[in-house]
Amino acid sequence: MLSVVARPLGLGASCCRGSRRAIATVISGNKASKLVRERLKEEVEKMKVQFCGFRPSLVVLQVCVFQVGDRDDSNLYISTKLKAAAEVLHSIMSVNENQTVHGLIVQLPLDTVNHINSELVTNAVSPEKDVDGLSCINAGKLSRGDLNDCFIPCTPNGCLELIRQTGVSVAGKHAVVIGRSKIVGAPMHDLLLWNHATVTTCHSKTPDLPEQVGRADILVVGAGRAEMVRGGWVKEGAVVIDCGINYVPDETRASGKRVVGDVHYASANQRAGFITPVPGGVGPMTVAMLMENTVQSAQRFLLRSQSHG
Amino acid sequence: MLSVVARPLGLGASCCRGSRRAIATVISGNKASKLVRERLKEEVEKMKVQFCGFRPSLVVLQVCVFQVGDRDDSNLYISTKLKAAAEVLHSIMSVNENQTVHGLIVQLPLDTVNHINSELVTNAVSPEKDVDGLSCINAGKLSRGDLNDCFIPCTPNGCLELIRQTGVSVAGKHAVVIGRSKIVGAPMHDLLLWNHATVTTCHSKTPDLPEQVGRADILVVGAGRAEMVRGGWVKEGAVVIDCGINYVPDETRASGKRVVGDVHYASANQRAGFITPVPGGVGPMTVAMLMENTVQSAQRFLLRSQSHG
Repeated sequence: MLSVVARPLGLGASCCRGSRRAIATVISGNKASKLVRERLKEEVEKMKVQFCGFRPSLVVLQVCVFQVGDRDDSNLYISTKLKAAAEVLHSIMSVNENQTVHGLIVQLPLDTVNHINSELVTNAVSPEKDVDGLSCINAGKLSRGDLNDCFIPCTPNGCLELIRQTGVSVAGKHAVVIGRSKIVGAPMHDLLLWNHATVTTCHSKTPDLPEQVGRADILVVGAGRAEMVRGGWVKEGAVVIDCGINYVPDETRASGKRVVGDVHYASANQRAGFITPVPGGVGPMTVAMLMENTVQSAQRFLLRSQSHG
Repeated sequence: MLSVVARPLGLGASCCRGSRRAIATVISGNKASKLVRERLKEEVEKMKVQFCGFRPSLVVLQVCVFQVGDRDDSNLYISTKLKAAAEVLHSIMSVNENQTVHGLIVQLPLDTVNHINSELVTNAVSPEKDVDGLSCINAGKLSRGDLNDCFIPCTPNGCLELIRQTGVSVAGKHAVVIGRSKIVGAPMHDLLLWNHATVTTCHSKTPDLPEQVGRADILVVGAGRAEMVRGGWVKEGAVVIDCGINYVPDETRASGKRVVGDVHYASANQRAGFITPVPGGVGPMTVAMLMENTVQSAQRFLLRSQSHG
């Protein structure tokens, strides 16, 4: 299903707006996520009937650290921080042991002032309930190809689902991932690799990003920089998946800003075969995949109960 | 220190023997591993003096499964297998608890007939003693960039050490890894990525291997196929690291065979800037890195003891 229009040679970094080729097919995350949610609803209904009212359950632990204010009272600050960390760990242990909960995600504050040891917190979540897929154990399994025995982080899992929607097969393709974060780039690399793509990971230290991008049959961008990937870099007919969520000033909006991705959409959709919009692309799929992982966790829980029972 | 001789255009897949450029500098694993062993010897001596005769200690658990023969007695077979697995796990637990041992590696039989669940065995080793770096937890940390908090598998760690010997910096280079195994390719990708190379992983499903190889400033091959990488594929001046150990028939030898790598050495050394020989390249470094990990484990043990004491 890849666009077969020949790449106009010699155009280099300019986009081919005005040429006769059609613009990219939009991959709608809104539509795709709706399909996923409908499928999950059916699966949950089945479980409910088969296992007497059983329901998959997810706990979202939102960590809010008490602000000590701007007094330079380091003793009070440290004791508050330690107390908060202990409470978080205690809550996690309690959910780990709760047999009626199948998924647990911990939302840490993003501020560095009250920085809790996020590794410690992430790895305190039982791997069997780590539906965010961010613990070392789940990351280790994914990175080494044990995809059926782990939880896959929701954003890359959603991206793969969107790629599948296009009908373009991943195996044998050259995929380029921009970014190597724990929640997007690194697991995206793993997921594409173990679906048998040849994968190149680019990042802030990559000196020739436009050339690397130009070789991508499948491009996934999780760079965190507004519209950094220009349309002229994109390979003709490529699948372009944009994980970026960036706010840029926009005087025409009441809010004074609007959301853009990491890809310059208006030029990239002139070259790509398929492209995700921002918003309405990867975002809704991430949420749907969290639900999917929770349902999967519940199914595994039922399987374990049966084999032990 | 990369060779700066211009790439002879138009030679394509043929090697450039006979042209005026010099052949590649050989990266000696024998010499490099000797330096590592000497450094480790000094560190161990220091520990011994500082901590009253303390010595790093490594246990190698060699698993030999009793052969039931070729009788089709599946009950006996299963019970033997289960008994063997239980004994292995028991031995691992015992070494995990032994405070005088700092490293534990388990060597599993390679035959598929007596296949023990190797994941179960690998992950039974305490992450703090897993000097092979093969457990999920260590793989997870390495793959997500927590390099100072894990054990790095010995072969890729040795490869990186050999690359460092050349004086060529990894950051910003395009590295290509052939293979995605748990002990070579996958952790090699991680190690190069987190040393800030742009990394492409190729494998059996990569359709254009010669082209991918041709873009590598640094090439690490762990494919397990004798001399599959041809000299003509190699980028002029590249660093070529060959992890292959393959036996090929050789009538001129008393043994009737000889060892070759995954790279066709005689042609690749005409284009590479630096190249590892086989034997005498990666092999000796792997052994040295196992010693390094064991010494590192002992040092971490001492640090933990001090902070708890």
